[in-house]
Amino acid sequence: MISPAIEELIEAFQCLPGVGAKTAQRMVFHLLSGRRQQGSKLSRALEKCISTIQYCHNCRIFCENEQCNLCKNPKRDRSQICIVQSPADVIAFEQTSRYRGLYFVLHGVLSPIDGITPQKLGLNQFQEKLGKGEIKEVIVATHATAEGEATAHYVSQNTKKHPHVSCSRLAYGIPHGGEFEYLDSTTLAQALAGRREVL
Amino acid sequence: MISPAIEELIEAFQCLPGVGAKTAQRMVFHLLSGRRQQGSKLSRALEKCISTIQYCHNCRIFCENEQCNLCKNPKRDRSQICIVQSPADVIAFEQTSRYRGLYFVLHGVLSPIDGITPQKLGLNQFQEKLGKGEIKEVIVATHATAEGEATAHYVSQNTKKHPHVSCSRLAYGIPHGGEFEYLDSTTLAQALAGRREVL
Repeated sequence: MISPAIEELIEAFQCLPGVGAKTAQRMVFHLLSGRRQQGSKLSRALEKCISTIQYCHNCRIFCENEQCNLCKNPKRDRSQICIVQSPADVIAFEQTSRYRGLYFVLHGVLSPIDGITPQKLGLNQFQEKLGKGEIKEVIVATHATAEGEATAHYVSQNTKKHPHVSCSRLAYGIPHGGEFEYLDSTTLAQALAGRREVL
Repeated sequence: MISPAIEELIEAFQCLPGVGAKTAQRMVFHLLSGRRQQGSKLSRALEKCISTIQYCHNCRIFCENEQCNLCKNPKRDRSQICIVQSPADVIAFEQTSRYRGLYFVLHGVLSPIDGITPQKLGLNQFQEKLGKGEIKEVIVATHATAEGEATAHYVSQNTKKHPHVSCSRLAYGIPHGGEFEYLDSTTLAQALAGRREVL
């Protein structure tokens, strides 16, 4: 309505998650009103990421080179692998500062109806890694959804074919600070089933 | 943490209004996960807007040329000018399809403490336009905030110096679909004060 270039930009911003027409319009006017330098920086950073970011050849996380900083780090424990759905999950685990092993990023979950097969999630590559014998423990950390559970089941069944590798899942239970009256009954039932003896 | 280019992009996305670190991270991974073409389109559209968009010489709205489509349109009534704070307000008025005049965009409101003077809002330029005699009516449509009201007062005082120009403000009252119990008392008081006789 005002200008074709602005309309195109409002349209383009709507590819972002949670951004509709109104929010996109607000973003565009925000940048054009005296924040052009920041906008230009955003444009350049975006173009750079899109043209340079690839998957790490080892763990499939996003990185600029063949191998990511985590896989390159000699201090990380190469015998432990945590299987996650997305790079955001890696960041979440790293923020806990409690995990010293490596990761393997699926970039999704099994969904045959959408054509997402084990191959697409890199699980063939993961089987090869298991065959090499360096890995001693696999922690399956897919999300607690139906597809996440199905993927976890597939991964653990395949891991069990390697008797020298132990396979675990994360503990289910009450989140930190969780009040019982606001917890769903599945979570509470899982917390009960997974109770641990006080030593 | 993962890659400097990704970190830079997450940082850059935070220049957008309402976007914090978590949302920015989600946006970046969303684009890098199979939506690179859309991301590339966004980057190009942004760069294009930033390098080509300027103010219309007549009404100060954002546009690619010296004069915007609204000012170029011979069907618009050149004797009516609606003064608004932002280009988003122009879009809102255009969506009503009830206004056929032109606009004048302030790109802000008077705020001496932040150094926003009448000159910065283009009000000198507006005075010149009034002096030319083509304008017959000025509709002051700044927002109903303290600064918006102060700006409206300034504009209307200056407009009154031109006796051939009428100056009006938008009607204040109950919004469409507004239920009284959820309206603030200022709005209700304004609706009462501005009541109109049933003819």
